Order: sequence, then structure tokens, then C-alpha cells
Amino acid sequence: MRFTSEKRLDDGVLEREFTLGEIPGTLWTPGSAPAPLVLMAHNNGLPKAEPRLVARARYTAARGYAVATIDAAGCGDRPRSAADEQARADLRRAMRAGEPVDELFESFIGPLVENAVPEWQTTLDALLELPGIGGPVGYSGGWTALGIRLAAVEPRITAAGFFAGGYVPRAQREEAREITIPLLFLLQWDDEGNPRQRALDLFDAFGSKEKTLHANLGGHTGTPWFELEDGCRFLDRHLK
Amino acid sequence: MRFTSEKRLDDGVLEREFTLGEIPGTLWTPGSAPAPLVLMAHNNGLPKAEPRLVARARYTAARGYAVATIDAAGCGDRPRSAADEQARADLRRAMRAGEPVDELFESFIGPLVENAVPEWQTTLDALLELPGIGGPVGYSGGWTALGIRLAAVEPRITAAGFFAGGYVPRAQREEAREITIPLLFLLQWDDEGNPRQRALDLFDAFGSKEKTLHANLGGHTGTPWFELEDGCRFLDRHLK
Repeated sequence: MRFTSEKRLDDGVLEREFTLGEIPGTLWTPGSAPAPLVLMAHNNGLPKAEPRLVARARYTAARGYAVATIDAAGCGDRPRSAADEQARADLRRAMRAGEPVDELFESFIGPLVENAVPEWQTTLDALLELPGIGGPVGYSGGWTALGIRLAAVEPRITAAGFFAGGYVPRAQREEAREITIPLLFLLQWDDEGNPRQRALDLFDAFGSKEKTLHANLGGHTGTPWFELEDGCRFLDRHLK
Repeated sequence: MRFTSEKRLDDGVLEREFTLGEIPGTLWTPGSAPAPLVLMAHNNGLPKAEPRLVARARYTAARGYAVATIDAAGCGDRPRSAADEQARADLRRAMRAGEPVDELFESFIGPLVENAVPEWQTTLDALLELPGIGGPVGYSGGWTALGIRLAAVEPRITAAGFFAGGYVPRAQREEAREITIPLLFLLQWDDEGNPRQRALDLFDAFGSKEKTLHANLGGHTGTPWFELEDGCRFLDRHLK
């Protein structure tokens, strides 16, 4: 893991860009150590520098967590094949038109999840060797399918916050039943791209004995600010 | 309003029993004043001394609120007619057997709500004349139908927390659309007596622009302790 830049933020949080082989990432660490680690992923199409992800990461780090994100292969700013670009364009068009997208999820998002998981695990290994990072690991992210797959294969993840979840590949809908760690499942009641009933069905499917659903009125990007705080309080209960 | 007993609790909260005409009530006030007022009702069949209600009220008072509850006519420990006792027994039996209870809700719970509302309003008038109680008023309660009716007719109520809501009389299902104050709607995912889809439909019906749903795994009495804290943080956002 090679750090390529660093910035000290007003609240004492240190924000560092890193590369790990071909994987570009960002790590936010609080002034205090040791800090539990939170892996924070975003919708696979958006880069790790997306302002909402950065704001969420900085807030969480200021609350005493080491927070890390990466652009996995084919995600964010990583190079994409022409076929991938076409698949993304098809997916966006179909979702906007309200057409069925399950087959595109299977053929395009499914492999993206499969390929992203080992990169996140490699990153996790490297992060846990850094000084000042330790203890249980949490997942908090808008990419629910990745989170499900990671939680299914990675016993170091002990609590997870998911967002939306109207569409996830079939494999992750199945894997949800095997997830037993505590969950906070956040959704927007009128999310344009995530059918409500499917998101509720996914929440229902998780095998966890402790799972909480938070739903707020409004569209995909309308999550109220207080859910940031609620998300940290959920992490506090399980990682601190 | 005549206070009949008082007890100072460990955390500085003063717990006083009162009567207001025929209405028996309890008022919890924090050490600090002035405190915003929270009206806290319980399932109409349970008395105001029910331990879960008392625990919730004490916790909320310790967080800086004046909290009041009453047994309205026909509710809790107030005298009941033989016909009322029969109706309650029929309702319990039908709910346990999973039979339809809508007609019983219309004929029995409907009038109970109608009759309870003026008693709660009389109590509200009297409470707001006490020293140290002031500012906006909240409702927090397991009796969702009463809360809807109160919020619909009582402009002094500016935020409300509801619980369950699988069954409410038709009049309150209609009135829900007129409610526009901020809401926190709490439900148990496997509530034996409150069909999930009906509770979700009620949440959907409220006219409020700011409404949040919290759902946790488990049966009717299994609400996790952290929802108490979440409920107070909701009140903090709107009453303080």
C-alpha cells in the first residue's frame, strides 16, 4: 500500500489517497487510535471521489472510525471496456424507462460484484496491517450487492449498513439468507431506481436476528442528514 | 388538576399522580425547566401504570421532557361496562385466531378513540398551565389511532411518534392523509397482532413530508432498547 497524497481536515481527520497494485483507494483516519475500520462502498458506477461518499466518509471518520474506499476493477474511475460502457448505458436507459433490468443485473452487475470482492479483501488485508487500525470491521455502503457478497465470504465483517437494495443480482438475493451479522438497512420510500417492494423483500430475506430498517420519504438522493448520525450510532453499538 | 402523590426518582425526575375531574393521570417532569411536553399513550386496554409505558416515560423525562399519560374513559383502569369487557374479549379472541377484526375495530375502538380525544385535550390544557412546562407538544405512543385523531384535531401537537398501526379504525386511516407534522413510525417486523402490510400502508398514507419508518425484527413486545433513544432524538429535532 503506497500513500500518494495526504490532507489534514479541520476536524483532525487525515485523508490519504493510496494505491495497492492497480487498486486506487482513499483512507480517512481519525485523530484518535486505534480506530475500528469501516469499508465504505458506493454504487459501482460512481467514483470514490463522489461528494456524497466523501462527505459520509469524513463524517464517519470524525466519529472515530478509520474509513476506506476503493474503485474496484471496472468501477468508478477505473478503465472500462467498450462492452462495459455499453452495458452501463443499457442499464441506465432501461431503469429510466422502467423496463425490466434483471437480466442486465445478472450479466453485467453479477460479474462486477464477483470481481470486486477479492480487491476489497486485498485492501482489507493491507489496511489491517497499518498502525492505529484494528478491532472489528464494518461495512457501510450504497453498493448493497457488494456488501452482501463481502459479508458472506468475509468473517472479519461483523456489522453492515446497506442502502437501497431494490435491485441486486440473484446470487446476492440468495446469499442474503446466509447473512447473520447485525444490519441497518436504509431505504428511500420513493426511490426512483429501487422498487420499494423488492427492497422490503430483501430486508425480509436477511438471516440476521438483529436487523433494523430505516425508511424516509423521498427519492434516491433525498436521505435526510440524521441518517448519517444514525448510521454511526449503529456502528458504535457493534464496533466500539 | 390535583396532585395525589409524588416520588423523586434517582435521575432527578419527579413522578406525580394526578386527577383532573374523573381522569387519572401521571406526570413526569425533569430536573430542568422549562421542558417541552410529550403526551404518551399506550394501547387503550393497558393501564397507565403498565411497566413498559412507565419505563418509556421515565427515560424520556430524564432526557429533558415533561411526559404525561392518562387513562381515558373506558381505557386502562377506568370502569368498563359489561358490553365493553365483552367487546375486548371478542377482539382478543379474534386477533389470536387470526380472524378479521375490522368490524370490531369500527364498533368498539372507533368510539373509544372519539371519547378519549376530548379527555386528552382537557389534560393538555391543564398541563400547559403548569409552571415549567412549555413550548411545542409531541405525541409518542403505542395507541396510534388516538395519536392520529389527536394530531388531526390538535394544532398544538407538532411532532408524533407512532408504534405498530396494523389495525386502526377506518376514520383514522382516512385522517392519516391529513396529518402533515413530522412523524417517526415504529413497527415490529413480525408483530403478531399488527399485519405488516397494513402497517406499511398506513405509513405510506400519512401526508407528512418528513416521515421516517423504523422496523426491527421480532414480535410486538420485542422493540430493541435503542429505539427509546432514537425516539428521543426524533423529539429533540422537533421540540427542542
